[in-house]
Amino acid sequence: MELVSLEDVRAARRLISTVTGPSAAVRTPLLPLAAEDEQRPLWLKPENLQPAGAFKIRGALHALAALPWHVRARGVVAYSSGNHARAVAHAARAFGVRATLVVPRTAPASKVAAARDLGAEIVEVEVSERERRAHEIAERTGQRLIAPFDDPAVIAGQGTTGLEIAEDLDVDVVVAPVSGGGLISGVAAAVKALRPGAKVVGVEPELAADARESLRAGHRISWPVEARTRTGADGLTAEPSELTFRHLVALVDEIVTVSEPEIDHAVGLLARRARIVAERSGAVSVAACLHRTLPPGRTVAIVSGGNIDPAELRGCLGD
Amino acid sequence: MELVSLEDVRAARRLISTVTGPSAAVRTPLLPLAAEDEQRPLWLKPENLQPAGAFKIRGALHALAALPWHVRARGVVAYSSGNHARAVAHAARAFGVRATLVVPRTAPASKVAAARDLGAEIVEVEVSERERRAHEIAERTGQRLIAPFDDPAVIAGQGTTGLEIAEDLDVDVVVAPVSGGGLISGVAAAVKALRPGAKVVGVEPELAADARESLRAGHRISWPVEARTRTGADGLTAEPSELTFRHLVALVDEIVTVSEPEIDHAVGLLARRARIVAERSGAVSVAACLHRTLPPGRTVAIVSGGNIDPAELRGCLGD
Repeated sequence: MELVSLEDVRAARRLISTVTGPSAAVRTPLLPLAAEDEQRPLWLKPENLQPAGAFKIRGALHALAALPWHVRARGVVAYSSGNHARAVAHAARAFGVRATLVVPRTAPASKVAAARDLGAEIVEVEVSERERRAHEIAERTGQRLIAPFDDPAVIAGQGTTGLEIAEDLDVDVVVAPVSGGGLISGVAAAVKALRPGAKVVGVEPELAADARESLRAGHRISWPVEARTRTGADGLTAEPSELTFRHLVALVDEIVTVSEPEIDHAVGLLARRARIVAERSGAVSVAACLHRTLPPGRTVAIVSGGNIDPAELRGCLGD
Repeated sequence: MELVSLEDVRAARRLISTVTGPSAAVRTPLLPLAAEDEQRPLWLKPENLQPAGAFKIRGALHALAALPWHVRARGVVAYSSGNHARAVAHAARAFGVRATLVVPRTAPASKVAAARDLGAEIVEVEVSERERRAHEIAERTGQRLIAPFDDPAVIAGQGTTGLEIAEDLDVDVVVAPVSGGGLISGVAAAVKALRPGAKVVGVEPELAADARESLRAGHRISWPVEARTRTGADGLTAEPSELTFRHLVALVDEIVTVSEPEIDHAVGLLARRARIVAERSGAVSVAACLHRTLPPGRTVAIVSGGNIDPAELRGCLGD
């Protein structure tokens, strides 16, 4: 089981860049953030500005672009807590193929409605059932399953985020959320290859800190799904696969955790100070920069997604 | 009185790009917007993501960069409804010089506090007094007055927004807010030179539509300040100068107006669908794309600023 390499990420970027139109990936800029305490030079990588509202469009476009055309033509299936499914719907539209999305009944209504608007077929299931049902549909219909993170093509696609960061800034610290680990695995593959001295820090909600516990133990430790899904950061409830866990062990320097109030505060701060809308899962990296002791230096916090229900955003805004 | 040219805008970009660090101008991407009705291919130019939360950083950086160093060293003065002053504070910090800002007592508290945090000296006055007081301070202290729009250097700086749009997209229609007219003058200078077939459309609040009335009459018509300041779009209450009005007459195809509810709706839509925080003044171009009949084709709406008080944003969010 090989790790994704810098060359894999570069190849992913070449393929992703062949997609044009409204579902193409955006080359997001780094935005300086004047934080309240200014304890570190901090930039945001606003992946919430992507077409699907999350970095997930990168991996989805690459996974579809990398399929043989006759396989892709049969369509695709995806399961996720929302953003991956929505990104696959975008990518399927970009390539003109059918998408079936298996989403948990607990997924935010805004995420599900957006995927349906893109022309995807939606299948709602219990959260613990989603992976099995997606495999079942793929077997029955011949549609290819696009895994949310346990796929080198997806990891390489997400890694293009790290490629851009390392190109734009002589970065010392990159901070990224950890759920299944696809984003941080790809980002670390690119950043560590281009800037070997840079630190890569993962962030999890305290209420879903299975990856931190696993990294400390040196082997994967599973948390019951009821435990993992207590957090309001509904995009961070997956667990690393064997593939992404190997990337964590090899490339990630540490994983820190943040509390639910710290996450809500970061969502509000991003709206007020950076003028961007982040979902809770997307704001954990900023929460860690504000509330945890991290390695010093020029820091980039990846704001991974922005699909938050208006009522929840309203609650985080403060005065 | 010559109009700002494409070459002036290109020269402005070269000077602006010499500034690095947290007050440097961001090369903003175009973001596709999936609007509710999808009646036109629409992209956003998110200038709310700039360091000062508005396009104004471009003109301020260029105006300071273009000053002889011994003049710049004495410091600068600015007056505005908020965003220009804040941008000048950023630019002064970038060049390490003193900034004095004359702001109306009615300016949003968030805008004033942000300028003060940047190290600027704040002078609060009645809205009708601000220009006179700024001139008085400049004369007394030797600090150079940086006009918010009635200055070719400022117009050329704002025009770099249009340069980037024309480089990134074969654009048919560019939609921009109109207040003093600095942004649309510079943008039109760049866009019309690079894409002669493109239309440039200005947008004003119905409650502050002096520029539209002036353009139709063929000469400048002044509205009483009490009338112009009724709109919630507090950044759009200035009037064109003779210089910017000549640009409007020569380069702008039409000016349309939008209502206050349409503006609030656009602020909410931008937060929900584009995941960016816009102030009311920054959202009028999107309101026009949604609610007015504009020329057809690939359209870019400039989202000019994002400095909105959290309570106002909360009111615009909808459900």
